[in-house]
Amino acid sequence: MTDTVMHFASDNGGPVPPQVLEALTRANDGYAWAYGADPVSQEVVAGVRALFEAPEAAVHLAATGTAANALALACLCPPFATVFCSPVAHIHEDECNAPEFYTGGAKLTLVPGADKMTPEALRASIQAEETRGVHGPQRGAVSLTTVTERGSVYALDELRALCDVAKEFDLPVHLDGARFANACVALGCKPAEMTWKLGVDVAVFGGTKNGLMGAEAVVFFDPAKSWEFELRRKRGGHLFSKHRYMAAQMQAYLAGDLWRDLATRANAACARLATGLRTAGIRIASGAEANMIYFEATAAQHRTLKAAGALYHASGDLEAAAPDALLLGRLVCDWSQSEASIDRFVDTLKAV
Amino acid sequence: MTDTVMHFASDNGGPVPPQVLEALTRANDGYAWAYGADPVSQEVVAGVRALFEAPEAAVHLAATGTAANALALACLCPPFATVFCSPVAHIHEDECNAPEFYTGGAKLTLVPGADKMTPEALRASIQAEETRGVHGPQRGAVSLTTVTERGSVYALDELRALCDVAKEFDLPVHLDGARFANACVALGCKPAEMTWKLGVDVAVFGGTKNGLMGAEAVVFFDPAKSWEFELRRKRGGHLFSKHRYMAAQMQAYLAGDLWRDLATRANAACARLATGLRTAGIRIASGAEANMIYFEATAAQHRTLKAAGALYHASGDLEAAAPDALLLGRLVCDWSQSEASIDRFVDTLKAV
Amino acid sequence: MTDTVMHFASDNGGPVPPQVLEALTRANDGYAWAYGADPVSQEVVAGVRALFEAPEAAVHLAATGTAANALALACLCPPFATVFCSPVAHIHEDECNAPEFYTGGAKLTLVPGADKMTPEALRASIQAEETRGVHGPQRGAVSLTTVTERGSVYALDELRALCDVAKEFDLPVHLDGARFANACVALGCKPAEMTWKLGVDVAVFGGTKNGLMGAEAVVFFDPAKSWEFELRRKRGGHLFSKHRYMAAQMQAYLAGDLWRDLATRANAACARLATGLRTAGIRIASGAEANMIYFEATAAQHRTLKAAGALYHASGDLEAAAPDALLLGRLVCDWSQSEASIDRFVDTLKAV
Amino acid sequence: MTDTVMHFASDNGGPVPPQVLEALTRANDGYAWAYGADPVSQEVVAGVRALFEAPEAAVHLAATGTAANALALACLCPPFATVFCSPVAHIHEDECNAPEFYTGGAKLTLVPGADKMTPEALRASIQAEETRGVHGPQRGAVSLTTVTERGSVYALDELRALCDVAKEFDLPVHLDGARFANACVALGCKPAEMTWKLGVDVAVFGGTKNGLMGAEAVVFFDPAKSWEFELRRKRGGHLFSKHRYMAAQMQAYLAGDLWRDLATRANAACARLATGLRTAGIRIASGAEANMIYFEATAAQHRTLKAAGALYHASGDLEAAAPDALLLGRLVCDWSQSEASIDRFVDTLKAV
Repeated sequence: MTDTVMHFASDNGGPVPPQVLEALTRANDGYAWAYGADPVSQEVVAGVRALFEAPEAAVHLAATGTAANALALACLCPPFATVFCSPVAHIHEDECNAPEFYTGGAKLTLVPGADKMTPEALRASIQAEETRGVHGPQRGAVSLTTVTERGSVYALDELRALCDVAKEFDLPVHLDGARFANACVALGCKPAEMTWKLGVDVAVFGGTKNGLMGAEAVVFFDPAKSWEFELRRKRGGHLFSKHRYMAAQMQAYLAGDLWRDLATRANAACARLATGLRTAGIRIASGAEANMIYFEATAAQHRTLKAAGALYHASGDLEAAAPDALLLGRLVCDWSQSEASIDRFVDTLKAV
Repeated sequence: MTDTVMHFASDNGGPVPPQVLEALTRANDGYAWAYGADPVSQEVVAGVRALFEAPEAAVHLAATGTAANALALACLCPPFATVFCSPVAHIHEDECNAPEFYTGGAKLTLVPGADKMTPEALRASIQAEETRGVHGPQRGAVSLTTVTERGSVYALDELRALCDVAKEFDLPVHLDGARFANACVALGCKPAEMTWKLGVDVAVFGGTKNGLMGAEAVVFFDPAKSWEFELRRKRGGHLFSKHRYMAAQMQAYLAGDLWRDLATRANAACARLATGLRTAGIRIASGAEANMIYFEATAAQHRTLKAAGALYHASGDLEAAAPDALLLGRLVCDWSQSEASIDRFVDTLKAV
Repeated sequence: MTDTVMHFASDNGGPVPPQVLEALTRANDGYAWAYGADPVSQEVVAGVRALFEAPEAAVHLAATGTAANALALACLCPPFATVFCSPVAHIHEDECNAPEFYTGGAKLTLVPGADKMTPEALRASIQAEETRGVHGPQRGAVSLTTVTERGSVYALDELRALCDVAKEFDLPVHLDGARFANACVALGCKPAEMTWKLGVDVAVFGGTKNGLMGAEAVVFFDPAKSWEFELRRKRGGHLFSKHRYMAAQMQAYLAGDLWRDLATRANAACARLATGLRTAGIRIASGAEANMIYFEATAAQHRTLKAAGALYHASGDLEAAAPDALLLGRLVCDWSQSEASIDRFVDTLKAV
Repeated sequence: MTDTVMHFASDNGGPVPPQVLEALTRANDGYAWAYGADPVSQEVVAGVRALFEAPEAAVHLAATGTAANALALACLCPPFATVFCSPVAHIHEDECNAPEFYTGGAKLTLVPGADKMTPEALRASIQAEETRGVHGPQRGAVSLTTVTERGSVYALDELRALCDVAKEFDLPVHLDGARFANACVALGCKPAEMTWKLGVDVAVFGGTKNGLMGAEAVVFFDPAKSWEFELRRKRGGHLFSKHRYMAAQMQAYLAGDLWRDLATRANAACARLATGLRTAGIRIASGAEANMIYFEATAAQHRTLKAAGALYHASGDLEAAAPDALLLGRLVCDWSQSEASIDRFVDTLKAV
């Protein structure tokens, strides 16, 4: 691509790759059974199982990451318990109480930390929650996210250590994988290596942020909760009657490992951006390990970028800030980012 | 079309018309703001308002009818109240407690009746619910459905009479319009004439059963609850990040009144089916007023049809029934039904 | 007692017997551990187990019948399921959606019938609820009530037959025992004979309507859900810190079978009322099997009774009714009813 | 009193004063209307209004503090919003998710701080919660507690400053007054001066911890939510049928300002304890402003106290701690504490 639009606000702003539209067109052939009984939906379940090397896993689709997360957590955490997660977790900050809603009123306990969770902090939080017997919430589940909301990627050892802490307390582990593919590519690992082999019980294999219109696969490695998930999904209004169109997106995503290809592009774009920022003397505050970067720039720099049309989130009150005040900016790359756009962003920054 | 597959199980089994795929392709152009801030989404809001002659209305999309209904009801009915609906209402029978979930535990009070609700039955049910003060649920809302789940279409006068009863008690009216277009076509009326002009407060303008992949417009004629709806939608995991693709479907649906064209086709197919059934001496038990028919046939006839590949729902235990036992069958037509398929169905029936 | 106040509105209007106040005074001795860890609370658990011949049972107190019922049902029925109950059940008509609230949005399916449930009607309702797979609510639990809200008492065989139907479908049985003691006395049976020996899984052993200030024992014959109940009770705000005072009431209730003595008095009062009504030529519409009567009288008769100070519920619009219009009245006796009051009621009626 | 039992575990462990038993006995006179329609209940509503100088206030009773808090918050905070409270708030730590349950899934946002909330911290937390539009929870309500869970009492100016911050954002203020009387006595102020005159919208006037068996008055200074509260209370199973017995407790509490007398005793006991601790060279970590003290002692000291029979909570692992390790202990006094008991505690400590 050769566009130079500098759109880095989110990885949910780009277009879908042609394979997705083609799959939709293919799926649009005559009559199909509704609610997931069609052949494409069946094929996709088999495909995700194969990809995760988990032939017994329960695999269900949901159209949004919020639904995928909240439904999964509702199967893991009763209403009188709590989910341990990061203070910056999407389930806490960006889902308008969806986990509380779907669990029937469970709590989220915020494990202190600015980005990646540490095993020590997780253990301390879990331990603290069990001194009150019937009075406090019970320990319910642990929710992890990689790529994190700050752009970091857990090393496999780090993830394993967190899972181990959860297991010390017999707690199930949920993995918010909105950017699963980007993390997988960053680590150069297989999906199984990032999930059940470490102790993850339920993983969201996200597609929406990585090039689909709206499709996430929720993978329960132990299928015991499969039917409960289906009932909760229906009750939440998330069982699609024309399920084949959601499945077709996932079908395209799996075919030829498109998911990996798309994430590889997004990560590469991000790496190019990071390199550019560094050459421009810009400090990278966090991320740049997959497809997201938090960088520090002056208000003057941010204003120049915005004036040039760059789209991204900047913290604080950009209008009111002094020209040399340092503000954080967040850049997210999806598969469709052009090199030209990235280079223009960096050049604009250098020119300030 | 010339297929002869005899697929009458539901109007959610057919393909989408080419205009929908074209709209998706058009919408797939570069970067777009997420969560409904894109131009297509904005255009669709304006389009639905224009179609309903309701320039102030709040218009929001949801991907499933269950979500659209449950979210709308949650804005109308507090958790300590009850929704008056038909015993065969989709919200009661086919949404796995989604209205109870989204309202936070409100009840559904079933107004006695086998199909269309009568004003007398509605009034009696509402009156009965207010003899217990704080002890019983409060009166919350009235939910109507047209085309009904038995294939009937309320005359405008009938709908108005029901709305009038609701207004006697200051109750808001929700219209489940999963088959809104089919009803509109059957009545030859405009959307406004079937909704706010009669006293409907919130209407679901269904697209999914009438040719879209998954898109319903929830129309609040009084926009006071608009923001609450948005928050409840987000909390329910129903705010699509890549909103443009849901909106594009609705865009195609509105363009050139495609919604009316599709429903006209479905209703015409149903009329052809009904005529055929009657010429075959088959009794039509209900429906045949829009795109759904309940018909009575012997077990032997049902078996022959099924053996020939016809897909539809038959009541009772078809395998165990005596050959001349009369069982109900349900036939639903969508826009894509071929005349050949319909004729083959009728001919198969005649040949028994 | 010699009062002649004719108070038959409910069995929650009378005073508590002196034993209850004495027990409160006894319990009010110095310091006690909170939340049920005090000796009285422990003694009461043992006492209820002994009474029910259920040494393994989980026994927990709640202050209101609504709380006892709703908490019990929440342990039996998941939010995507339904509770089968009578259309006149207290849980449906008089708890302002408490079961829906505590279960997290489960439904109540009303088994057709005007009073006692029949096994055939129950079976038909359960069967009807399983034709829709993921779309309809799942079968959750069966809730029975004896004494019924119409004053009837199930024979043990009738209760057993209903439990058997529930067991056919592997459904747990909840017994709303707000008037448990009155039913027990009417049948001349032991608590065990009316509960677990028939297949009841959870019984509410009601005390409030039978002479306590506010105390019900929830008895889970299988203690597996005991901890979940405790957590739900705490979450519902129903775990009393000064638990000893709720327990003391139950202690008094158990001592010397006071519960049986109180119910014997109430039932006897009701029998005297019924005899009086019959001698006055009044038709008894239902009840008169324990401590509640529905009777049919003319509006003129009701007016005379009310004018004389009688307190009870009469159906319909008593003020507007023609003098000879027949209206139902409901009379409920508690342990404290005087013979003089009953006789005056009957005499007043005869004098019309 | 002359007992020397050293019971300082909580103010919910002591007996009730004789006035409460007398009031129960008085209320136990013949028939009374149920559900709060009795004269005692009516009198108590008037009494609380008079006490708070709030003739229009809605006043409702609840039997537990958790119920009072959760029901009040449910009237203030919609399910898609958040309640700002202290990390050590009872509603967060000790109610097993009751606020989340009653609000239908709202969140609690923990305003950083170890004890009393500061206006700056509150403002920062509120501001932080409104950067995400529909994605994050909305600002719902502010919940304050005085006496705090660390034994501190807000000065009236401090409370006013917090209310002012809430009002900046149009947020209603809930006051958890489990120890309302103790705070009032500590400040030497009137209830109105500690509530609506500062901007508190709903106050819980707690009785249970201050000598009642189980009764709290929830006071809405603006009665607009009164009926909603009643419905939510009924739905929560917290409407007592024999309401007169809960009301009688509050009646005794109000009569002759018993509430103030009881709290004065508890606070005096606490002051004596604090003085004793200080003379023993013990550091008071927090509290000692009303009826609760956190003190720092060595493990050896704690062990001696416990061995002597003192009942109170000590932090950490007392058994495993080194003899000179400093551990926090919590002492709470209720109205019934004897001077002898307090002196024995101090003497025991001095003797180590």
